[in-house]
Amino acid sequence: MIDSNTGHERLLVIKIGGNVIDDPEKLDSFLKEFSAIDTKKILVHGGGKVATSIGNKLNIESKYFDGRRITNDETIDLVTMVYGGLVNKKIVAKLQSFHCNAIGITGADANLLPAKKRKVKEIDYGWVGDIEKGKINRKVWELFLENGLTLVAAPLTHDNNGHILNTNADTVASVIATALSKMYEVSLIFCFEKNGVLLDVDNENSTISKLSFGDYDELKKSKKLFAGILPKIDNAFDAIKEGVKEVIIGNSSELTALINHSGGTKIFSE
Amino acid sequence: MIDSNTGHERLLVIKIGGNVIDDPEKLDSFLKEFSAIDTKKILVHGGGKVATSIGNKLNIESKYFDGRRITNDETIDLVTMVYGGLVNKKIVAKLQSFHCNAIGITGADANLLPAKKRKVKEIDYGWVGDIEKGKINRKVWELFLENGLTLVAAPLTHDNNGHILNTNADTVASVIATALSKMYEVSLIFCFEKNGVLLDVDNENSTISKLSFGDYDELKKSKKLFAGILPKIDNAFDAIKEGVKEVIIGNSSELTALINHSGGTKIFSE
Repeated sequence: MIDSNTGHERLLVIKIGGNVIDDPEKLDSFLKEFSAIDTKKILVHGGGKVATSIGNKLNIESKYFDGRRITNDETIDLVTMVYGGLVNKKIVAKLQSFHCNAIGITGADANLLPAKKRKVKEIDYGWVGDIEKGKINRKVWELFLENGLTLVAAPLTHDNNGHILNTNADTVASVIATALSKMYEVSLIFCFEKNGVLLDVDNENSTISKLSFGDYDELKKSKKLFAGILPKIDNAFDAIKEGVKEVIIGNSSELTALINHSGGTKIFSE
Repeated sequence: MIDSNTGHERLLVIKIGGNVIDDPEKLDSFLKEFSAIDTKKILVHGGGKVATSIGNKLNIESKYFDGRRITNDETIDLVTMVYGGLVNKKIVAKLQSFHCNAIGITGADANLLPAKKRKVKEIDYGWVGDIEKGKINRKVWELFLENGLTLVAAPLTHDNNGHILNTNADTVASVIATALSKMYEVSLIFCFEKNGVLLDVDNENSTISKLSFGDYDELKKSKKLFAGILPKIDNAFDAIKEGVKEVIIGNSSELTALINHSGGTKIFSE
């Protein structure tokens, strides 16, 4: 699909989280739908609960600060195994069975996501990485995409000093979408357990179908939005400011509708 | 390096096993030496003892038959995590730090190693795969190699029905070497803990530097070789029959010497 304004081809960067990964049936049906999409696409996955449950068996304690995992030596090994190995390769094998030529990667592979270990301030997050956006080699991403490969990215980066780093999956998806928006018309799609941005958090039928920055400003002023969704929307507008064409937030169970703008919330600049 | 007879470029397919993987210092020094080689190259790694030790902590019993691991549901998850995640990504991150643009893969990624689950005969090996040599897409391997990427392969394949399969690392290396010998002059290098094929198994200085099929036949007749090395040599001659230019067997601590034919045993057809 070529954009009529820019002549750039459409690229979907789709992020799924724990609610899909932890449920084999949901995951299977999501991956089948994902495989059928005839557009260039990248899948970014989180880790789900399996890292915590395997970590418990291995007596590795999961510590969090502000909702973020603190990644000590044992924990980086754990998430490298689980995110980069178990979850990533299961998804890739499944996609292959649906005739989607997937390739699983971490940010260390082909140096796709160079990062820096986060500096210690009030808290030491350990082996956590912030992606060095300016150093992303878009040519390598393009090489894979232009040769018919679908990248499946685990939320892991690396520091170029031999260490794997843990990086938030939403951030990985945003950074990839932004970096590739120079060559493609990027739709960044965040799948979660809700149908989109809801006017009433308890009513799944109250999805706002389109949200421009002006709309958002008004809704925020009138305090009509659930506070928990605000950071997601702020991040979406950040991505749009940096070149992403649109961000779509919605339910992983209706991926095709999200892509066709008949489901979820489309966030756009004007 | 271009071969003067065929005009094909040299490609190294190098296999390392547990004796390197289990020893962080050895691994580090091997990977440094590997990174410095200015030739197209592929690294195939085994799993080492870490899968067994993590398996023990997770109460997954390691069962073997004829030296081969029996791979039940729990075990395939274990080796997918450990070989495809922990070991593979640690190697890739390390190589990146040595300026080698590595990309870690399993056979499911980009469908690089399509396989079939081994049929149950006297014993059910479980999720074990035999590579379907005829279905290997050499173009994809070539795409990576010709774009300056060094593939790092975990000993895992897939069945195109959504399952990861466990496959012997020596076999993975042989099959890759054979498949790519149509486009490259392939040197297949098996690194192990000995200096090469030894005339006297207790004397590391008794390495046979060159072994043709004629020499081998004579040595076998006179029973001068240690029985344990025979399958390795038989496999080497099989690879050569299928197009590999030479097989080199030797110590992982002297990789450069192996490549330059100043160390190890070079096995060749005439």
